[in-house]
Formats: sequence, C-alpha cells, structure tokens
Amino acid sequence: MAGNTFGNLFKLTTFGESHGPAIGGIIDGCPAGLNIDVDFIQHQLNRRRPGQTVLTTQRNEKDKVHFLSGIFEGKSTGTPIAFVVNNEDQISKDYDHIKDVFRPSHADYTYTEKYGHRDYRGSGRASARETLSRVVAGAIAQLYLQQYGITCRAFVSQIASVKISESALELDFEEAENNMVRCPDKDAALRMIQLIEETALNGDTLGGMITCYVQGVPAGLGEPVFDKLHAELGKAMLSINAVKGFEYGSGFGAVLMKGSAHNDEMIKTTGGVQFKSNHSGGIQGGISNGAPIYFNVAFKPVSSIKAKQSTIDKQLNPVEIEINGRHDVCVVPRAVPIVEAMSALVIIDALLLQRASHPKF
Amino acid sequence: MAGNTFGNLFKLTTFGESHGPAIGGIIDGCPAGLNIDVDFIQHQLNRRRPGQTVLTTQRNEKDKVHFLSGIFEGKSTGTPIAFVVNNEDQISKDYDHIKDVFRPSHADYTYTEKYGHRDYRGSGRASARETLSRVVAGAIAQLYLQQYGITCRAFVSQIASVKISESALELDFEEAENNMVRCPDKDAALRMIQLIEETALNGDTLGGMITCYVQGVPAGLGEPVFDKLHAELGKAMLSINAVKGFEYGSGFGAVLMKGSAHNDEMIKTTGGVQFKSNHSGGIQGGISNGAPIYFNVAFKPVSSIKAKQSTIDKQLNPVEIEINGRHDVCVVPRAVPIVEAMSALVIIDALLLQRASHPKF
Amino acid sequence: MAGNTFGNLFKLTTFGESHGPAIGGIIDGCPAGLNIDVDFIQHQLNRRRPGQTVLTTQRNEKDKVHFLSGIFEGKSTGTPIAFVVNNEDQISKDYDHIKDVFRPSHADYTYTEKYGHRDYRGSGRASARETLSRVVAGAIAQLYLQQYGITCRAFVSQIASVKISESALELDFEEAENNMVRCPDKDAALRMIQLIEETALNGDTLGGMITCYVQGVPAGLGEPVFDKLHAELGKAMLSINAVKGFEYGSGFGAVLMKGSAHNDEMIKTTGGVQFKSNHSGGIQGGISNGAPIYFNVAFKPVSSIKAKQSTIDKQLNPVEIEINGRHDVCVVPRAVPIVEAMSALVIIDALLLQRASHPKF
Amino acid sequence: MAGNTFGNLFKLTTFGESHGPAIGGIIDGCPAGLNIDVDFIQHQLNRRRPGQTVLTTQRNEKDKVHFLSGIFEGKSTGTPIAFVVNNEDQISKDYDHIKDVFRPSHADYTYTEKYGHRDYRGSGRASARETLSRVVAGAIAQLYLQQYGITCRAFVSQIASVKISESALELDFEEAENNMVRCPDKDAALRMIQLIEETALNGDTLGGMITCYVQGVPAGLGEPVFDKLHAELGKAMLSINAVKGFEYGSGFGAVLMKGSAHNDEMIKTTGGVQFKSNHSGGIQGGISNGAPIYFNVAFKPVSSIKAKQSTIDKQLNPVEIEINGRHDVCVVPRAVPIVEAMSALVIIDALLLQRASHPKF
Repeated sequence: MAGNTFGNLFKLTTFGESHGPAIGGIIDGCPAGLNIDVDFIQHQLNRRRPGQTVLTTQRNEKDKVHFLSGIFEGKSTGTPIAFVVNNEDQISKDYDHIKDVFRPSHADYTYTEKYGHRDYRGSGRASARETLSRVVAGAIAQLYLQQYGITCRAFVSQIASVKISESALELDFEEAENNMVRCPDKDAALRMIQLIEETALNGDTLGGMITCYVQGVPAGLGEPVFDKLHAELGKAMLSINAVKGFEYGSGFGAVLMKGSAHNDEMIKTTGGVQFKSNHSGGIQGGISNGAPIYFNVAFKPVSSIKAKQSTIDKQLNPVEIEINGRHDVCVVPRAVPIVEAMSALVIIDALLLQRASHPKF
Repeated sequence: MAGNTFGNLFKLTTFGESHGPAIGGIIDGCPAGLNIDVDFIQHQLNRRRPGQTVLTTQRNEKDKVHFLSGIFEGKSTGTPIAFVVNNEDQISKDYDHIKDVFRPSHADYTYTEKYGHRDYRGSGRASARETLSRVVAGAIAQLYLQQYGITCRAFVSQIASVKISESALELDFEEAENNMVRCPDKDAALRMIQLIEETALNGDTLGGMITCYVQGVPAGLGEPVFDKLHAELGKAMLSINAVKGFEYGSGFGAVLMKGSAHNDEMIKTTGGVQFKSNHSGGIQGGISNGAPIYFNVAFKPVSSIKAKQSTIDKQLNPVEIEINGRHDVCVVPRAVPIVEAMSALVIIDALLLQRASHPKF
Repeated sequence: MAGNTFGNLFKLTTFGESHGPAIGGIIDGCPAGLNIDVDFIQHQLNRRRPGQTVLTTQRNEKDKVHFLSGIFEGKSTGTPIAFVVNNEDQISKDYDHIKDVFRPSHADYTYTEKYGHRDYRGSGRASARETLSRVVAGAIAQLYLQQYGITCRAFVSQIASVKISESALELDFEEAENNMVRCPDKDAALRMIQLIEETALNGDTLGGMITCYVQGVPAGLGEPVFDKLHAELGKAMLSINAVKGFEYGSGFGAVLMKGSAHNDEMIKTTGGVQFKSNHSGGIQGGISNGAPIYFNVAFKPVSSIKAKQSTIDKQLNPVEIEINGRHDVCVVPRAVPIVEAMSALVIIDALLLQRASHPKF
Repeated sequence: MAGNTFGNLFKLTTFGESHGPAIGGIIDGCPAGLNIDVDFIQHQLNRRRPGQTVLTTQRNEKDKVHFLSGIFEGKSTGTPIAFVVNNEDQISKDYDHIKDVFRPSHADYTYTEKYGHRDYRGSGRASARETLSRVVAGAIAQLYLQQYGITCRAFVSQIASVKISESALELDFEEAENNMVRCPDKDAALRMIQLIEETALNGDTLGGMITCYVQGVPAGLGEPVFDKLHAELGKAMLSINAVKGFEYGSGFGAVLMKGSAHNDEMIKTTGGVQFKSNHSGGIQGGISNGAPIYFNVAFKPVSSIKAKQSTIDKQLNPVEIEINGRHDVCVVPRAVPIVEAMSALVIIDALLLQRASHPKF
C-alpha cells in the first residue's frame, strides 16, 4: 500500500536511501528449497554497479550483498530472505548546496510536497540506487525460473537516435554483454559509446530504450481483468527511475496496423501450438500464450546535467544551480539488469499464482 | 490477487461475462456522504454503450445501471456499493460456430490454457463488455474528485495514420464530444470517420490512440518506489482490452531528447509554483507535481475481422473461420470514457492514500 | 482494505443492507472446473435462514441464491462468481421509531460516528443478514475442500449455562441437525429449547457457544508469523456478528496447565504420524499438523430485547425505547452454518496459498 | 500474503531466525515528520529482552536496535524504516541433538511438513525471538498514537491459577512494572513469582493471561464487516507465539449473560457520550465507541520442558529427548510489551484508514 512492496506471492519490500547506512529488502514468499547461488546474484548486481565502466558514474561502490535470513545450508527455507548492501562511497557534502533547492525535473519538489520532510542527500529514497534491491530479488526469481526453462534477458536497443539494426534482433544476448552499452549490435554499440562520450564533454545527458525478451513462459500466466500479464509488466517497468513509456508486442506501432495484418495466425507444429507472427508479444487477453514475451521500455535523459540551470528554492525564490555529484550521462546500459529483474519478479509471481489454482503448473 | 479487483482504498471488484445474465461490480471504500448523481453515471455509460452511433457495433444494449447497496437517501453510506447492468441483447448462437475454435489474436486459446474450461459466448469474461463496470465506478470516483476540482478528460488523438493537429491540442474537450469519433480536431474527425467507413466495407479493423488529461491534481500524490503515480496509471490503462502501450509526458519521445532540453524549469508565479514546460507530464519521481498529468494510450485494431482466417481448433487441427457477430471496426472512440474512468480510479486511490498519512489533503 | 473482502486467493467481497434490494457478493479466485452444486449451497443457506423453526425470527425470507457469473455448464470457469439473494420480507417501517435513536449495544452509534450517514432500517449493513453471503461462499469452498477429504462441521455446545455433556463430544454431527438448536446432545438440546422458550416469554435474549471441527486438513497449511492458521480462524470467527471470544485447542484452559501435561506426544502409527493428545488443536507454530482442528466461538446475547430501555438520541438527549421488529432470542443455532462457512474460507485460502509454493499440495 | 507482513497502511514486514545473523523488519507507511524517540523504542525492547530478571531465560542479548533508513534528522521521512537487531549470544550447538527430532508441541514437525527444509537452531523462524521486530514497530506506532492521546497498556492478570484480585483492576499500570511478573496486584505478583520459582525447580512450565487496555481511541475506528476492530485485534494477538485464546469486553463470560444485563446503556455527560457499563469492550458492530478497549489473551505453557519426553524423529522412529537450551518457565511477563505493540499496530492502521476517507480524524 505504501508503495515499497512489489508482488503478491513472491513479495519484495525494499528500503534505503542513497546516503543512509544501507540499501536492502525482504523477500517474502520465496519457495523453500531453492539453491541460492550468491555468485549469480552478485554478478547481476555488478552489472548494475556504478563505476563499472568509464561511461558510468564514478561513485565507487562494491555493492556486495549480505543475506541476513531465510537461507540455511545454501537453500531458501521458505521464510523471509532479508538482505543489505552497505553504502560506502557516499559523499554527502556534495549535496549541501542543493539542500534547500528544487533541482529541475528531480523529485526534490514532489517529495517535499508529499512528505514535508526529506533526506536531500543524493536524492535520498528517490535515488536510482534503490534499484539494487530489485536486482537482488530479481536474481533470486531468475534462479527459480531457470528451473522451469524461463529466462529474462534485456539489452539496449536505442540511445538517442542510434538504434540497433533489424538484423541485430536475432538477439545474441551474449554479444550485448561484450560492450559497455549492452547493445547486441556491435556497430550501433560503437556509435552509442561515441555519442555518450561526446555528450559527457558537453555536460549533457541522453535517453534511450531497452528491449526485453522473456522466453520459456508457459501459456496460462496472467490474471485478467485488471492484473493482465502485460499490465503487471508495464507497471513494473514504469516503476523504474526515468522510465517514460512501455509497449509490448506491436506496441505503439499497432495504431497504424489493420486487424488483418495484426492478427497472429495459429498453427500446429511438431513442437505444439505456434504463432506465425508475434504481434501479440506473447500475451493475449492478458494471459501468456507460450510465444516469447517482448517489450520496450523508454528512458528519459537523466535530470542531473552539469550546465547552470534556473530554478527556485524552498522559499520559492528564484536561484541558479550547478549540479556537481557524480552522475551518469546515460543510465540506460546500467538499467538492463534492472529491467530483467523486474520482469522476473512479475513472471515468478504470475507462475506461483497460477499454480495455486492449477497444480499442473 | 485473482485479478478482478482494482485499487486499494477505493476498491473496485468486477464480475460478468458478455452473455451471462449481468455485468457489474462492488465498490468498497467509497467515502460516505457523497451525492451519487445517477444521471452522470448513466451518461458516462452511454458514452461507452454499443449502438450509440452508426460507427459502432449494433448490439443494442440499454446498459442501464442498477444499484443494490451502499446508497441511502441519494448519498453513499461508506458501505459497499454494488451495481449490475443486465445483458439484454446477447445472441449467443452467433458464437456456436467458434465454440471449439481458437480465433486468431483473441483470448480463446489463452483462457482455455489457463482455466481448462471457459464460456465461449461473446468472448465470455474476455469481452470488452466487462469495461462497463469500470465506467460506473470511475464515474463515482469522478463525482468525488470534482469536489476537489480534479477532472479526468480524454479524447481520440489518432486513428491509423490520421492524427489531430498540434493546434487541436488546445484541448476543447467539448468539441471532442460533438463528433462520433470523440476527436477534438474537427477536420481530423471527418477523416477518421471516413476511414472507419471505408475499412468497414473491407471487413477490416483499425487501431488508434487516446490522449488523457488529468487536471487539478495537487502535488504530492503517488507512492514510490513501486506504486509511482504513472506506474499505477500505466497498469490501469494496460488493463483495458486491446491496449498495447502507454507513455506519459514526453513518453517515447524522451529517448531522443537531451537532459538540458527535457528538464522542466520551475518558476514562481502569482498562482504558486509553475513549470515552464511539462515533459514530466505532471509527475516527478512518481509523485504529482501539480501540473496537468497527461498520457497516451495505444490501441491495436480489434481482432474480430470479417475476412476468412486460418487457425486451429481445440484438437489442434487446422480450420478456417469467418467471424460473424456484431463488432466495432474501431473501438477507440468508445474507449474514451473507459480511459477517463480508469484514470479517476487511480487518482482517487492516490488521494485517499495520501490523506491517510497527511490530513491536509 | 475497506473491510468487505475476506481471503487472498479465494477472495470473497460482499455487499448489501438488511432492507436494501439485495444481499450478495463476488468470489474471485475460485479454481476453474469445480462442480457448483447449487442444491448444497441452498441447503446451507436454509440452515441459516430466518423463520426455519419456531425458535427463530419470523421474518420470512426464502433466501434463494441467484448466480450472475463465473459458472458455465454447471462448472466454475475461474472468473468471478457473483451472486445475489433478494430481500423480500423487509418491513422498513418497523424501524421508523429508532431512526434517530442509538439502541444500546447496537452499531447505531458507532456507524454514525464512523460514516456520518447510515441506513438505519433493520441495522443496515450491520445486520447479521449480511452473513448469508458468507454462507454462499463458504459452501462453494466446502464443495472444493470435500474433494480433498476436508470437512468443516460445527454445532452448538452451550447456551447460557446449559452445556453438552463430555460424552456428546463423540461428535455425531448428524444428531446436531436433528434438533432446532443444532446440539449433538439430545438431552442438552431439550433443555436449551426450553430455556429459549422461557426467555422469549420474558422478552430477553441468550448467549451461547459454538464448537467447530475441521477434519482432514493436511499438515503444512498456515503462514507464520502473522498469518498463522489459528490467527486467521480467529479473525474469521471474530468477524461474525455477536462474537466475543475465540479459543482453539486447549484455549483458555491452557492457562491452568503445565507444559508437561500440555505437550502432545508424537507417535508413529500405521496411519502415519499421530498425536496422543490434541491440546494443540491441530495447529503447531501456526501451521496445521494433520490432527483435527477444533475451536470454540463465544456469542453474546443479542442486543434487541423487548424490555423498555434508556438511551440517547442523535441530539444526545435521553430517550426511552422499546424495540419491536422480529428478532431471535438466541442466534447461536442459526450461526452454526456461518461458523462452518468462515472456517472453510480460511482453509481453502491456506490450501491454495500453500500449493502456490509447493505443488504437491 | 506469505505471512510476514502485518497491517495495511502502517505495514510491518519482518525477517530473521533465532540463530541467524540478525532479526529485524521494515515499516512501510509510517507518516512523515514523527519524532523517532529511540530511547523509548529501546526501553520497550528491554521489557521484552531475555535475561532481564532471574525469572527469564539467561540467553544474554543486548537487543540493541539499529535503524538503517527512513529517519533523517531524528524524524521519520515517510519512506520505509528498516531496522535490525543483531543476534549475539546464540549457542547453536545446544540444538545439534534436536536437529533430526520433532520436539513435542513445537513447530519442528509442521515447519518440516510445510517447507521441507528448515533452520532447526533455536527453533529458527518459529522462535519467539521474532517478536522483537513487533516491539520495535509497535513502539513507533505508540509514539504516533501518543500524539492523539491513545495509549496501549497491558499487564499479567493470571499465571496458572493465581489471578489478580478485582480491586487490582483499578489499573495502576506503573505498579505492574514494579515487579518481575508485570502484575499490578502486589500480592498476586508475589505468589506468581513463588509459583514460577517452584515450577522451575521441577523443570516444568506455566501458562498465563495478559489483559490489555487501549485508551483514548476515538469512536469510529474499525472496518466492518470482515475487518472489525476486535477481529483485527484478535488476529494480532493470536499471531503471538503460544497464544491459545482471545476475548474482548465480556468475552466468554457473555455466554452466561442475558441481553438485558449485557446491553451497555448510553448516557450523555458533560464529557460527551458515555456508557454506564462496558461489556462491549469499547467496540460495537466492529467499530470503536470511544470507551476503553480491553481484552484478554491466553498463553499456553511453553513446550520446552526439562523432563525427558517420548517423540519421533524425521524417519518417524520413536526417540526420547531432553531439551537443554535456555528457556523461560513462563513467558507471559515478557509478552506484555508484545501485546502492547501488536495492539498499537492494529490501532494505528485503523486510525490511518479511517482518516483516508474522513479527514476529520
């Protein structure tokens, strides 16, 4: 209710501010007996970590996860799994100068209006540092889903006007991990990197798009009419910092299509039911149909730019500010594991829920 | 949990199949003492009603709402408000021929995989007829919000490639109600109508886009980190039949923008805090900032086309089908009051929730 | 949240006032494919019905249930099951004289303080007539649980100072249904009936106790630490009108016992694990242990007595009232199917929830 | 859903095993701006702490609480408040001998049946050590409620057959804190202490009863029909380890009363509406009426006795065990702050919820 819990049966509750002692969360409802592969979890965290490449913020955090409960002899016990990641490299005095100022397009003003009182250091709770809790929980969900052959993989498909080519959509996810921008199209990746470097010199920031594929999902997951599978995915993605839009399957492109072109013809193959096209994005009527689920997530350019900006302070007086701190020019590459994590949280919840009524799942 | 409830404090639970005796719902948590203006509610239902213009399905339903509880002497009592709308003009035999067939891009296959057993008549629960319950509850929410000067108004901004002109964005909502496609741009409306008529002759269907403005929302609504206001709006919209995408503020356009251009400069005016631009779409950090909230919702072309289609039946044998029944060529104009209703449900819930902790709201 | 929903996965939301057009509810989450035996459901409703014996209120309601959705060809479809029971024999003018008066120990004052505005006729939403929705949903839950060999059976174990004898605890549930007070001890039943008749002549009312046995529950149901199985049962029972106390297993008697006497020794028998005693009441650590679950529910005497009483009116002026209307001297016999229904709702929810994580259930 | 969250608007999620690194929780929904008086919180924890008197377990834990988030400059920020209490004095090898054995009336068997896999050390998650998280959250709730003049105070009213005298019910809560058993009747306290000492020598354990008063609650809190205020209190209390029963107001005594004696007559005094008696226990129709709320909670004798006991092991073979470890003879005195904490969690949630719809609260 108060906004810091995600999921129903596999339920993540998170806490933590950017410059407090720690960030973390509690997972309630992880099925017992799951092997908790801490290396995999840490690997996912490392993909999100600041300072991982020259392109990202130089705040240097190890982001090492510590588990406090719910695991015994390497396996989940079915009781709550609590974890913390300590904040180590915060430099709070970087934020003294913005203490009483509302930075443009940040959450400074809205948090103040909502709560009256806020931790202004490093954006406090509004910092994207919060998302590391999502990555931890999502990694555990991924470990569970892997047992059922379900995978959640994302990549950067666009930064500013640089898009991956159509052919790159043949989806060599490993290739995406070979470059700093997590883009599966090598050529596009090079241009993206160049663009980020140029933009950094100007003190400006860039938006981008992430595409995610969830594969191996059996037909039957999702809860109409309100909790349709794509509605839950949409909410999950829109809850990530800086996200402005979500589309699945044909998405906004569907506006231009006719029904005769959009319908996905069904056929029977030796592998079972298949679809000749996948404009449905693997979901029909809010329920998975067994085809790959895919969707796009649009990110705005981050608001922390180096240029001088006009704004107002708490007393509503006009002021000019320059934002120091250590910020990403483009957060989109670091958001890839977050998108994967959130998709895993949605899918595991839908799987457990479906199984409650239908033991075959 | 099971998907038929929306909202937390102002909570709608719905029921009903297209060809069952009735459609309806229960609203739990409507504040006591609200004047229940039944005419306004019926008016909103009529905007969604089939058969309202020559462009829409000729299924002829009065869609008259009956209240069963929760209202006494014209006012809400704070106890659950139950309502039903009877189904009157269903012609179930229209569906006999598709009983054992999976229509392409319908929910036939996924409902069968999920539940094993389904009411195939008129798509059963997957029918968009379900949305009338949303309109009833949304209208009651709108009555409540009006007391606080909050309005939720939507219109058709695109059908296929016909878009409203920029200038039409000066938003004469009343003009939108003057034409059959609910488009505030008269010229575009004419072209949309023509396109729908042509497409009808071909037995095909069309997609489109709805734009919605929520105005008068005070700063401070929304519950980070997971239940950000735009994430709730996104889920609400994506839960509507045929929706494929959601974006708010700058939306997918943000991908192409730089931070320096995207940031909304804050100023103080005699009317209080204002923003020189509104790329944020009235929401920053997941919390309303007092500026108008606006967003776009993308609809696919409906799947019921008249042309012969190849598909498979329950035994997975290939079959050809022709879909009869009475279907809309383009549902987008009828979806306008649904988009408004869902936005009202999101906002009232956020308002009540904020007030729980902060009595000033 | 707003109090009219019970359960998580098998979720009942109810509506209706005593003198409105109807009482009813929506069940969301009933597994698909269940045979909905309407006769059984109506039978359970008849056990709760007013006017069933000379001992109960003479309000004459058929209490016939009508289903509006979620059932197709006699089976649940997995979509919401809505039902209504019309109010037919309400005599609202019986309540005109108490319109502006707070009857002692009724909910008149508290509903007014909470909501400002209330339906005073027949206690409105606070009427125990509300419980028929619970009986309908509980009966459907019982139909489901029967497939797993789980039964929920209750009886009257005490009215005022008349208790069943120890030997009657050998539990011939059928005998309980052979008399008007639903007591399995024939002799006690006769004395209870006599006491009720005497008390009726005096215009007074009586309290009593119901004992319930839930048998066949597998070990493993219940969700520590907050949603322990007995905590959910306790909440369920305490939510029934006029209930003042709940105890399970050894209950309040445990206060007087030593640990050495209270511990239930475990043994292995040919039938598997067994317990030499059952002070635990079938639940240990909040989780079922496979032994029968049993508990007691204490009911106060109903507040509607015939004698003249002093109270105050809405303007807080002292007034004297006499309550007319048609009331039960002792509601406990009619509450037996309600206790059974609520226990079934708790158990089905726990079963579905356990199965979500552990498919063997 | 998975059982480790309590409350809706002021929501506590807990984690931790007796012998893991830490116990703790996250409070989501604490209103912003509350002064977090850490000394008061620690004081409440100290009242629950093991080793506080010669009567309690000699496990020596400082139980010092550390806050990780949600507090800035001494005040709550409205974001999640996370806290941990480290486990320091666990002696896990004490439990090696019961690793594969099911101790009678413990949760060993049921956790194994439910989860397959469990942390057997010190009862793992089933340990009452879990309740310290409740005390932390409850203390914060109490800090909030104190602003509204609401207090939650409990005391021991019975241990085995030793009860407080009627006159002690004049409720000198401070006196209760002056003795090791938290009993407001000095004479009874002495007899209780003597009884505990005697029972300790025999290696046996004792049950008891706690009475709790919640004072200053305004009329209007509670959410019928399922979430009646006393139903929530009952669930809260029944969720505490070793609790077997709950009654409020007249409780089980109501079974023996007639309506004419049970009804609480209303009068108007200079202080407003009052009740001549309080059999209702401050709650009518599930909603507070402004009179003091009071209830009793029955505790069984703890299961860890020193005597040799017969039981079975994981292979279902019969075995004899002696339980070592460091255990309380009677946990009831230490449970007093837990009962207070849980009552505060129920009341704050009801208060916030009522305010959501009715800003005057």
